Amino acid sequence: MNSLPPWKDKALFTPGPLTTSATVKQAMLRDLGSRDTEFIAVIKDVRQRLVRLGANSDKFTAVLIQGSGTFGIEATLSSVIPPDGKLLILINGAYGHRMHKIADIHRIHCQTLIFPEDSQPDASALESALKNDPAISHVAVVHCETTTGIMNPIEVYGEIIKRYRRTYIVDAMSSFGAYPVDLKACGIDYLISSSNKCIEGVPGFSFVLAGKDSLLATRGFARTLSLDLLAQWEGLEGDGQFRFTPPTHAILAFRQALLELEQEGGISARGERYHENYEITLSAMQAMGFKPYLNESVRGYIITSFYYLDHPNFSFKEFYEHLSEKGHVIYPGKLTHADCFRIGHIGRLSAGDVASLMAAIAETLNEMEIRMPVRM
Amino acid sequence: MNSLPPWKDKALFTPGPLTTSATVKQAMLRDLGSRDTEFIAVIKDVRQRLVRLGANSDKFTAVLIQGSGTFGIEATLSSVIPPDGKLLILINGAYGHRMHKIADIHRIHCQTLIFPEDSQPDASALESALKNDPAISHVAVVHCETTTGIMNPIEVYGEIIKRYRRTYIVDAMSSFGAYPVDLKACGIDYLISSSNKCIEGVPGFSFVLAGKDSLLATRGFARTLSLDLLAQWEGLEGDGQFRFTPPTHAILAFRQALLELEQEGGISARGERYHENYEITLSAMQAMGFKPYLNESVRGYIITSFYYLDHPNFSFKEFYEHLSEKGHVIYPGKLTHADCFRIGHIGRLSAGDVASLMAAIAETLNEMEIRMPVRM
Repeated sequence: MNSLPPWKDKALFTPGPLTTSATVKQAMLRDLGSRDTEFIAVIKDVRQRLVRLGANSDKFTAVLIQGSGTFGIEATLSSVIPPDGKLLILINGAYGHRMHKIADIHRIHCQTLIFPEDSQPDASALESALKNDPAISHVAVVHCETTTGIMNPIEVYGEIIKRYRRTYIVDAMSSFGAYPVDLKACGIDYLISSSNKCIEGVPGFSFVLAGKDSLLATRGFARTLSLDLLAQWEGLEGDGQFRFTPPTHAILAFRQALLELEQEGGISARGERYHENYEITLSAMQAMGFKPYLNESVRGYIITSFYYLDHPNFSFKEFYEHLSEKGHVIYPGKLTHADCFRIGHIGRLSAGDVASLMAAIAETLNEMEIRMPVRM
Repeated sequence: MNSLPPWKDKALFTPGPLTTSATVKQAMLRDLGSRDTEFIAVIKDVRQRLVRLGANSDKFTAVLIQGSGTFGIEATLSSVIPPDGKLLILINGAYGHRMHKIADIHRIHCQTLIFPEDSQPDASALESALKNDPAISHVAVVHCETTTGIMNPIEVYGEIIKRYRRTYIVDAMSSFGAYPVDLKACGIDYLISSSNKCIEGVPGFSFVLAGKDSLLATRGFARTLSLDLLAQWEGLEGDGQFRFTPPTHAILAFRQALLELEQEGGISARGERYHENYEITLSAMQAMGFKPYLNESVRGYIITSFYYLDHPNFSFKEFYEHLSEKGHVIYPGKLTHADCFRIGHIGRLSAGDVASLMAAIAETLNEMEIRMPVRM
């Protein structure tokens, strides 16, 4: 008796929700009481594993917050900056701008340093800003800007921020689980990611890895009830429970995902698989005439932005739909100044899945009667 | 080949997360792209079905918000009350107090009318308040206070609130799907519930049924980004998508749960099943010497509070653990002035499940060497 449905879902070459393993999804075939002992033990286990992945030091802790990654970012920004604090945001894409929007709506005093979407924020500009403005109490940056796939050098910024003794917030939504990161070595006080990214769980919550000393100094700063980071942590540390109904099924899936990350060989092994997915994608796409948006030196292996083909027959909508019919979901662009689409390399996808997408793209170009002259 | 685990989960006699059907959970064995056509159609279908359940009028709409029910309450209170508005809250339990806490943290001008936990808020006190204070722009009340299980007469309050032309907000977290409600007839502008209550889905999001005219008049009032009700509605109406990553699996489960609610015969048939669960519980518990906290006239069939037994051998912790070992999860109390525990009647539970819990309670009392004199 197999109750699994007869279809096969499309492979998701997106920034998330991602394709997850069957066993991760099957972990959700249970109903646990949110205040019962078994579930409290699951929360504890998940939090401990997260701390080990990011810091492996008892000076750090993990807080889970219901909602998407943006909820985790808003929880952090609206909970940890004092009323008289000032936030500096390094921006080179849509997710940096989103932090600015959050700061504005909470009337957090804020300064931005905005860089082109194809360039890393300049470390010397950060240093000048901190040197010239002692009012800046917090600095925030995105690790992998999913807008383009660019990787920002969080360890370089961290060295400067710690030298000037400011608090450091990193949006590691797309990168955590794919790139090794050591919060202590990078001087990070708060790192935010979510359940449906490179840990390969299902969507439902975000998590914040936080330095305990930093977090404990934020009493009274929270600007909401639901997204109060310190109160949420106190609940988890106190009776081990969420303050408000947790997404029990998503957390069960996440625990299974953490076990499978370990079985794969941890973050470095997972990063190698994603890197291979990226390499196969890049060389096949270039051979078909597609050009990546970013220079190689700043490109990550999470997601790649490609320019639309400069060909009269190319329509992204049609291209997307052909691929979708063939069982592959790619992702539209989010750039302000260039026509691009994106292909993700993360999630439960193997070299074979990527090869299958590349074959589908070749077939689609054929169907659209597009043949590009390729200069290798 | 059956991949289902060999265990049977404990039955959840709680206010939620609840026991759900196997088919609701199996609907989560998929990974859908959150911006792909199929998932956009699921969101649309779910929203339409919700409106039909609560209003069946195109003057109402449904907004889904990531997070627990409290997130939905905070989204509503922090998004729909203007800066110069004033909120009156009728309170007779913990969830009324929670609305007060949310109003406070957002610095919303607020007045409360507080009543004993075993009494319904007095309609004439509401009327006096509205008569004497034209500054009150919004009134909020909880339909079923899960603290005790008391049902508040939302249609009586609604008649008064509409007569005084104020905006009416109802927390129907525990009641929606179990008690028929007609937003139009009750004069309700905003009704909030969540995925893991009487629709019998899994936790992951809340939903707000809103009068379109009321909602459209709230531009510029939102005090957060993630919980901005109007912006979330505009996203859902615009491209049909969530603004930020939705809990795709929980939404697939919810769609299945809505279909199963229909198959059961809709809200009235479901209410009858819950009512039967309540009747069986009440008579068996009274026969074993337990006394309900509320008078019959105000008692609902969602959840019942019982006093601890007045017997030297009775310890709630021990009682709870015995039942848990036997496969039944009951719920602690939340009352300020009385030692009570709670038994829920909602979720995918039949008369047989309730009878099984009652047998386990009888056995447990035996094990704890408790025999109560019963006056019938």
